[in-house]
Amino acid sequence: MRQLWKSLPVEMRATTTCAGRHLQLGEFMTNPVLVEVLRGDIVESVHRGAAVIVDGDGKLVREIGDIGMPVFPRSAVKAIQALPLIETGAADAYGFGDRELALACASHSGEARHVELAGAMLARAGLDETALECGSHWPSNHDATVALARAGGSPNQLHNNCSGKHAGFLCVCCHQKIGHRGYVQFAHPFQQLVAETMEQVTGVRHGLENSATDGCSIPTYAAPLKSLALGFARMVSGNGLAPERAKAAKRLMSACMAEPFYVAGAARVCTQLMEAAPGRIFAKVGAEGVYCAAIPELGFGIALKCEDGAARAAEVAVSSILAGFFANDEAVFAKLTALCRPSVENRKGEPVGVMRPASALA
Amino acid sequence: MRQLWKSLPVEMRATTTCAGRHLQLGEFMTNPVLVEVLRGDIVESVHRGAAVIVDGDGKLVREIGDIGMPVFPRSAVKAIQALPLIETGAADAYGFGDRELALACASHSGEARHVELAGAMLARAGLDETALECGSHWPSNHDATVALARAGGSPNQLHNNCSGKHAGFLCVCCHQKIGHRGYVQFAHPFQQLVAETMEQVTGVRHGLENSATDGCSIPTYAAPLKSLALGFARMVSGNGLAPERAKAAKRLMSACMAEPFYVAGAARVCTQLMEAAPGRIFAKVGAEGVYCAAIPELGFGIALKCEDGAARAAEVAVSSILAGFFANDEAVFAKLTALCRPSVENRKGEPVGVMRPASALA
Repeated sequence: MRQLWKSLPVEMRATTTCAGRHLQLGEFMTNPVLVEVLRGDIVESVHRGAAVIVDGDGKLVREIGDIGMPVFPRSAVKAIQALPLIETGAADAYGFGDRELALACASHSGEARHVELAGAMLARAGLDETALECGSHWPSNHDATVALARAGGSPNQLHNNCSGKHAGFLCVCCHQKIGHRGYVQFAHPFQQLVAETMEQVTGVRHGLENSATDGCSIPTYAAPLKSLALGFARMVSGNGLAPERAKAAKRLMSACMAEPFYVAGAARVCTQLMEAAPGRIFAKVGAEGVYCAAIPELGFGIALKCEDGAARAAEVAVSSILAGFFANDEAVFAKLTALCRPSVENRKGEPVGVMRPASALA
Repeated sequence: MRQLWKSLPVEMRATTTCAGRHLQLGEFMTNPVLVEVLRGDIVESVHRGAAVIVDGDGKLVREIGDIGMPVFPRSAVKAIQALPLIETGAADAYGFGDRELALACASHSGEARHVELAGAMLARAGLDETALECGSHWPSNHDATVALARAGGSPNQLHNNCSGKHAGFLCVCCHQKIGHRGYVQFAHPFQQLVAETMEQVTGVRHGLENSATDGCSIPTYAAPLKSLALGFARMVSGNGLAPERAKAAKRLMSACMAEPFYVAGAARVCTQLMEAAPGRIFAKVGAEGVYCAAIPELGFGIALKCEDGAARAAEVAVSSILAGFFANDEAVFAKLTALCRPSVENRKGEPVGVMRPASALA
């Protein structure tokens, strides 16, 4: 693995290519602009980043910017983290179908259906909300927040966008009879199992030295974008995975694509991308500008990060990259290109600008 | 004025200096990293941008990145837009004190005191919420949103963060007997008065060609950061302004510094910066990563923009720049440097990382 970003100023980090130019270590380094935000016809803000597409054997299909840059994938790798749920037999033991598996891979919006299903998953293992160690927050879906407040409620840990993933984690612990207290900690046997799984799928060491704490309190491990893309290419192609793992991976990918609402929620881009081409696109956002995606029929994995951490730009960038692979399918292409150009609106909901992919994504 | 960004890719824009290096038009151009976001001890995201400090005569005190870059100042120039409220005599006619003037310069959080005062300002001119043309949105203060929902309410235009500014606008229209309908439109006589005022204070043409529509439906005009900084240096120093305007400008600056809660709200950085050094710092955020500030005792104006539009980074950057001028005042310095290193927290509220100024701000 490449040297970590650590505390080096970004200009000093090693890089191989930048906007197609080869640069030396120490030379002024920058990721290209991936997305522009226009107000009227003037560019108001720009988002830089890197993106990579690889096949299941790790062959580069396309690279933009510094793809060796170690990135915390955050929630974008939840589907890889969910492999033990299948591989231990816990999912079958608790009778989980596509919805439960999709929710185990989700960053959901805290809508009623998400919250109820996360609670039901825990109940199958004889647990409840109090076993979760992810913390609470108000639903990201604004209508769900208003409804909760109007009902006099407050959020609990089931409203946490990661509650489905954590419910899956707890189900594995219960099924495997691993004491679940502290299951979010780096040194807990369950997190070691997750790290080992991610290490095998991405080919990158997941150790204390490249770890930090995610928003939901579990470890997140910095890995080069190229390795994250390879992980998802393997998840859909099965290449480089043992047969049982390949089967588990495809089952998770299929579940997410079959139930995209449970991976995100209403008006969410992950859901919209997977609904645009049912069974043909997997897409999962991560915090701080990360997106991972895969195209099963091509066996391609995609990983990108907007270096400023902007979700709005990562959404446009991943939509743009995906659209490029569906140019021959008019209906799918139209839906994907619409997601590439979201309106910038004023407070009356009138369009006053637009976001668009920059030339680096052309 | 320099050529606008328009639809040019950012790499092709003209620039004079970048991180201290002189670049030619067409040469690879970039703003330096201003702020880093760390998770654990690894840099997770970075924010690039430009910043400038000038005195009341326009003399450069310090520049970082592309300070000629035309920037939509958005809400950062509300205090300049409020000059007509004083200059027409409307503020005195309606008996406005510091709080009302501060709210006229505010992007408030929609807390009860903000909403009530905006309504009271309109009532002085015989108007009510229905005269506003800014649109509605839920309060940015989460507790205020929850309280409003729990009370069974929905936001109206008084909850719009710009309602104080718009109330001030409407007061000028009523006092001057300008028909107020359509007061948000570019061609409305009142907006022409505002544009002319901003043109005089910043020295930059405010025309249709560099305008677009702001979130609250009024025009916003792209101007180089240097000109925005000059505007605020003039607002606090009076240099280059007619005596009556200099007096009006100082009255607005003083009102904001005297009532910083009414310029923003609870736990907001504008409020915290002005509370850190009462009467010695003016600070005002604008959407999409803009901050303008001024130091009256030095007669300096400051303007910065994070090119990715990130408010979190603009807050760290402006705090860092301001801290540099208060190194000799231990108490003020400590408060400002604390604002330079906000914690990154998990969903349990535990610190898992930190934001910090990058070397370009050192």
